[in-house]
Amino acid sequence: MQSTKPDYPSVETFRRQIREGRYQGHTSGGAPSHVQGNVVILPEKYANDFLRFCQRNPKPCPLLAVSDPGDPLLPALGKDIDIRTDVPKYRVWREGELSNEPADIRDLWRSDLVTFVIGCSFSFEEALVAADIPLRHMQQNRNVSMFRTSLTTQAAGVFQGPLVVSMRPMQPHHAIQAIQITSRFPAVHGAPVHVGLPHLIGISDISQPDYGDPVEVRDDELAVFWACGVTPQAAIRQARPDFCITHALGSMLVTDMLNQQLAAF
Amino acid sequence: MQSTKPDYPSVETFRRQIREGRYQGHTSGGAPSHVQGNVVILPEKYANDFLRFCQRNPKPCPLLAVSDPGDPLLPALGKDIDIRTDVPKYRVWREGELSNEPADIRDLWRSDLVTFVIGCSFSFEEALVAADIPLRHMQQNRNVSMFRTSLTTQAAGVFQGPLVVSMRPMQPHHAIQAIQITSRFPAVHGAPVHVGLPHLIGISDISQPDYGDPVEVRDDELAVFWACGVTPQAAIRQARPDFCITHALGSMLVTDMLNQQLAAF
Repeated sequence: MQSTKPDYPSVETFRRQIREGRYQGHTSGGAPSHVQGNVVILPEKYANDFLRFCQRNPKPCPLLAVSDPGDPLLPALGKDIDIRTDVPKYRVWREGELSNEPADIRDLWRSDLVTFVIGCSFSFEEALVAADIPLRHMQQNRNVSMFRTSLTTQAAGVFQGPLVVSMRPMQPHHAIQAIQITSRFPAVHGAPVHVGLPHLIGISDISQPDYGDPVEVRDDELAVFWACGVTPQAAIRQARPDFCITHALGSMLVTDMLNQQLAAF
Repeated sequence: MQSTKPDYPSVETFRRQIREGRYQGHTSGGAPSHVQGNVVILPEKYANDFLRFCQRNPKPCPLLAVSDPGDPLLPALGKDIDIRTDVPKYRVWREGELSNEPADIRDLWRSDLVTFVIGCSFSFEEALVAADIPLRHMQQNRNVSMFRTSLTTQAAGVFQGPLVVSMRPMQPHHAIQAIQITSRFPAVHGAPVHVGLPHLIGISDISQPDYGDPVEVRDDELAVFWACGVTPQAAIRQARPDFCITHALGSMLVTDMLNQQLAAF
């Protein structure tokens, strides 16, 4: 058992369930001490542009691993990870349109596909919860609120688009502590990009997120905004590559890495 | 020359001017790379209470050095520092009332006096300016705004009182960066204690500081609040010890330590 609570399966058991198609749901809270990642799989002809897009936008697109073309394994993230089977649910995109949501992609695999794994906020949320900072969307069993902002990403080739952010309401002293804690985790979005004045980043109504669920911001709280892994997905949708595979929303790749291994200091 | 700009005197020259009574002004901007400190000198009968007060309230009262009773030297802060002569201007307090403001205290020195040197925000302001974060009170050549809050300190013996904070207005992305930077400097007040919602800490009018000068907070800015070295002075004034010496406002002890030596990581 490597997980923090006795009720959770080990990461090996959890990934075996996923690999065998017996679990196709959200991975939030599953193997909570382990790093989870956003997945983007692109044909090699788009891969260089996308790699530069990630390099130029490290806060929304912190790269944990990039595979060799055609190689479905990700040894940097775990000795037994096969990207064709180890994500609970995938999304297949053709010409920028959602085609289907299979539980494995063995029959779609090609020798020119490159896998990108991008850090995810689940890792820093574990650290926030460990510090006793309340996260309302978790307490209410909702998805985090996400917003397209007026902040732009640095374009690279065909990839460009707005910065998408996730929002967590916090009392000011918790916001300060959350900035300190998430600064330690640059590989999973790092410190917030904004706090307190959402209209300055193009958010006119905090109760109407563009993705995820609404989460109330109370009078004694500040809205705290982190760069979000939906940003690259928005850029891909805008670029409309002829073929692309991603994870389905909330169904991430569970790796062997521990969140604490990502702490920068 | 150990200072960062050619116009500044070396710390040795600056302190010699102070020691010889030729400089009795503010030390802000003098030897800006060197640590400056708030000074409190108390008879030994109060020293234990005050030491516990500082230990229990490290954000407003980060102790840089405590002398042995009767010893005017502070070898931890510099090889040639004599607290009887090396502060530009002192304040002598009797029964809690300001008695006079001499340029040296050689004739007041006693064998039972204990010196406390407490970290000061000048140190972290150097780091903020180095990161290109604008500080309006500096740009406008004003003193920082300070406020008594509804937050309380942990009492120790006769010492107790409200937490006093200093306020710096910042755009949200600068506020996030300032939290990161000042977190590195726990010995000089460390991270802010509050951001953005001043009424939650008992500040009803941000334009009416209790100490220092008013500094405007613009619509695209958040008020960021740090624990302030005026907090122990407020506690001393409330305790009314029969005898006490402090530095005069803004006329700090200049030490041999470099601000960067205080960086925790």
